[in-house]
Order: sequence, then structure tokens, then C-alpha cells
Amino acid sequence: MKTAIIGLGLIGGSMAKDLRKANLASRLIGVDSNPEHSMMALELGLVDELLSMDEALASSDLVIVSIPVSAIQKVLPSILDQVNDHAVVLDAGSTKSLICEAVKKHPKRNQFVASHPIAGTENSGPTAAIEGLFQNKMNIICEREKSGEHALQVAEKVFKALGMKTTFMDSTGHDKHVAYVSHLSHVSSFLLGQTVLDIEKDEKNIFTLAGSGFASTVRLAKSSPDMWAPIFSQNATYLLKALEEYIAHLQRFKNHLVNNETEKLYDIMVQANEIRRVLGGIELNQQKTDEENKKVSIEK
Amino acid sequence: MKTAIIGLGLIGGSMAKDLRKANLASRLIGVDSNPEHSMMALELGLVDELLSMDEALASSDLVIVSIPVSAIQKVLPSILDQVNDHAVVLDAGSTKSLICEAVKKHPKRNQFVASHPIAGTENSGPTAAIEGLFQNKMNIICEREKSGEHALQVAEKVFKALGMKTTFMDSTGHDKHVAYVSHLSHVSSFLLGQTVLDIEKDEKNIFTLAGSGFASTVRLAKSSPDMWAPIFSQNATYLLKALEEYIAHLQRFKNHLVNNETEKLYDIMVQANEIRRVLGGIELNQQKTDEENKKVSIEK
Repeated sequence: MKTAIIGLGLIGGSMAKDLRKANLASRLIGVDSNPEHSMMALELGLVDELLSMDEALASSDLVIVSIPVSAIQKVLPSILDQVNDHAVVLDAGSTKSLICEAVKKHPKRNQFVASHPIAGTENSGPTAAIEGLFQNKMNIICEREKSGEHALQVAEKVFKALGMKTTFMDSTGHDKHVAYVSHLSHVSSFLLGQTVLDIEKDEKNIFTLAGSGFASTVRLAKSSPDMWAPIFSQNATYLLKALEEYIAHLQRFKNHLVNNETEKLYDIMVQANEIRRVLGGIELNQQKTDEENKKVSIEK
Repeated sequence: MKTAIIGLGLIGGSMAKDLRKANLASRLIGVDSNPEHSMMALELGLVDELLSMDEALASSDLVIVSIPVSAIQKVLPSILDQVNDHAVVLDAGSTKSLICEAVKKHPKRNQFVASHPIAGTENSGPTAAIEGLFQNKMNIICEREKSGEHALQVAEKVFKALGMKTTFMDSTGHDKHVAYVSHLSHVSSFLLGQTVLDIEKDEKNIFTLAGSGFASTVRLAKSSPDMWAPIFSQNATYLLKALEEYIAHLQRFKNHLVNNETEKLYDIMVQANEIRRVLGGIELNQQKTDEENKKVSIEK
């Protein structure tokens, strides 16, 4: 399959690596509005050639759109306008409602599969692309019923080649839940980073006193603003609700601290400890996916 | 050196492992108020024998107090009362002001070294003890001038054997800075965990949608309430200030989100990205410690 990757960053670049390795992409065409990123992606061998958007769309069987969500929302209709009648278009955006809304009446809507492969690191750009980024992770496809059979089959091949397990949701449900489980943790981390930098003007103290716990909690504060500002903005309604609840929890904790109610602080932490079981479940799930994938490849 | 470890959890147990390996402890005596933990520590070979507090103190050259900070504050005076005149007492508490205050007029104050070896994991109890936990991490000694020469020399040997680099601070400065760089990240993580658990009653959604970013940010929410409730309570003044600033940053972010000021969200994230440089510095620092330790061992 001749494959065009629109957006040669962490996600697009990592997909390129895995799709080439899985022999799914016979030729990889790169498109990026940033000429430096384009050149880097070519030099790194992520793609075989660089084309303009129009040229790339005219000659591809598969188009993967891995650019910031605001840009996906904007260019997706014209991408669908231009692709061949047999081509399949996938996106990799972390929000889904506005993206689906943008093409809901498009005559080629059935050639598009609205996807959210849940994977990433705090790094960005083509140099951040790594092999196996998606392995054993979850992919969400939204509004499955609006995609045609052929498009869904191609999407299935792509996400299987990436080592992902796909599940289906409606786009509103998706956006609501990722607000809590992904977007809120990014906000909490960005602002923890800012708070600490703000107060610890003398950075020596951060060097000296920060342990691995701080590094872990603040890791996401290194994430790309180009990617995350549009996500927060597109998912503002649900993120606001999540953020309000988070702030309310913090306020409650603060009040217990003011009133020296150590017992209540203790109870809150015992409740929060429940996350251990849930995270254990995530790891278990990933192991299962791992085993299933192994089984599949043995059965081949 | 006959060494008593008071508190056989993650910290005490991990110290026992490394001090034995470094041949610093000729005999390891365990003391723990929890009989289950005591038996486990003995079975795991963390300590050679279990004694009562009184027996242990009467026969030890080195006493390491690795229990919750509220318990340290409470029992430290009577520990100093009972130890031999040549014995050295170290603690491993994450707060220092109230602990130092508790023994500031004690006639044996010079036998005590107020320490904070900055290391840990989100796990607890004797089974969580691991070798090398402290390797290349920082140790803070507070109120150095109140410890005698012999006590400081023993402490130096202990922390070197653990692979740590020691730096000196006053206890107020210590408590103020750890409030931001360690305690606040624990609070932010505990409450992120609670917020998500609270809203995602159907845990399937957490299973499905949580990526590695969420797992990283919420990791500290698995930490022990027995350890952290007393830390938060002892460091309430500084933690409150840190928490208020964190909440103010979150509120500001929320307002920008409400007003659809994506540019401002973007600017905040660009500022927070600075943490990348700081965390890079932490890693660099650890490498340096690593190299220095190598040099020291070569020079031996």
C-alpha cells in the first residue's frame, strides 16, 4: 500500500517505522509543513520521499493524518476531497468529536476512520519517532458505523501491524473519558512543573531535592505545546469539568491540612491507593494483549 | 558495626540490604512494632535477629530510625536516652524541623545526625526493600553543626556505602523546598488518582483509555498513607503554601480554558517545558555522582 504520512512527528514517524517493518507500506510518502522536520524525516529514513500535500493525496492508497487536532479538523475535509476513491484516511488525534463533526456530511466520509491510538512519549518531532511505540497499547475507533467496510478492514490491518488492540466508542464518550484519564493528567503535570519552576527560582534546590517521584509526576510537562494546546482547546468542555473536580479535591485536601485533620488526609490517600489495583489491571491487560499477539503470530 | 534498624519497611529494609553488602554492618538487628513485618524481614534475611527496642538500643553502635516522621518525632528522645555513649543515631525522615526540634536540647544531641536520604518507590513494607535503592541519589543532612564529629564520620560512611552524595541544609530550608519538589507532587498525584477513580466509576474506561502518561503521573498515588499522612501534617505550613500556588496556577489555566485563550494555554506550556532542562540537570547530576563514585572506588 502506498502510504502518505501527513505530519512527520513522534506519532507519524513512529507509525512509519512500524508500518515499513510490517511490510504494510510498500512506499512511504512524507508531508510536513515544517521543512526542517521534512528533511529530518527523509534523512532518518522514516519516509522514502517528500511530496506536497496535493501530490501525496493524488497517489496514495492509505493516508495517515498525524498533525495537531486543530489542524486535522481544518484540513480533513479537503484531504477527503482529494483522495482517490479507493483510498483510506486515518487520523491519530487525541480528540474525536470536532474532527468527526468536520466531515460528518462529507460524501467520502465512509473512506475515513476516526482513530485514537493511545501511545506517546513526552518527546516530539521526527527524531522522537521510535519503533514499537504502539506495541500492546489500545487504539480507539470512533463512529465505526460511519466508516465503510473496506476502510475498517484497512484500519484493522494498520493497527494490528502496530501491535495495537482496537476498541470502539462514540466520539462524545471518548472525549469525555480521555479528559479525565489523559488530558487532566497532562494539565496537572504541566502546572506542577510551572509551580515548582516558579517558586524554585534558584534551580539548584530542584536539582538537589528532586527525587524520582517528582521526575515521574512532572514528566508530561515536557510534552509539546503545539500538540497539547489544540487538544485542551478542542476538549475544553469535558476538560473543564475534570479540572473543576480536581481543583475541588485539592481544595478539600487543603482544608483538611489547615484544620490538622490528619485522619481525613489519611482516608483520602487510602482511597487514592485504589489506583494501584486499576493500574495493575492496565498492566495485566497489556500482558494479555502481548500474549494474544504472540498467539496470533504463532498461528500464522 | 552492630546496627539496629528501627522500622523494617522500604527504606529500612533497603538500607539493611546495602549496608550488609558493603560490609558496614557486622550484625543487623531489626525492630518493628508490626509483628508481621518483623517476621517477614527476618525471613527475607534483611536482618539477622529481631529484638525489642530496649534490647536493640542497649547493644548497637549504629541506630537507623526509618519509621513515619510523626513516630520519629515521638520516640527519638527516648532512643537517645537509651543508646550507648559511643553509638550514632541516624533518621531517614522526609521532614526535618520538628524532628530536630524534638531533640534540640537533648544531652546526647551530638550523637544524632538528622538525615533525609532522598530515595523511594511507591511500594512499602519489608517486601518492597530493594538493593541499590539509594545509589546515585542525594542525601540531605540538616543542622550539621549540632552533630558531633564522630557521628558525622559514621553518617558519611553509611551514606557513601549506600552510594549517596550528601549535601547540608538547615532544617527550615529543607522543609520549605521539599514541600515543592517532593510533597506537592505526592499531593497532586494522590488527588489525580482520587479524581479519576471518583468519576470513572466504571473502571473499564480507565483500563481502556489510560496510557503510560497517566500511569506515570499517578504513580505516587500508590504510596503509603502511613508514611505520607504524617509527612504532610508535619510540613503543613510549607505544603499549604505550595498547594495554594498550585491551585492558583490550575485556576488560571482553567480561566484561560473558559475564555478560549488558547495562546495563553500555549504560553503556560512553553514555560512548563523548561522543566525538561531542569530534569536533564538532575540526570546529569546523577551521572556525575556515578562518575565520582567510580573514581573514588578506582582510587581506593
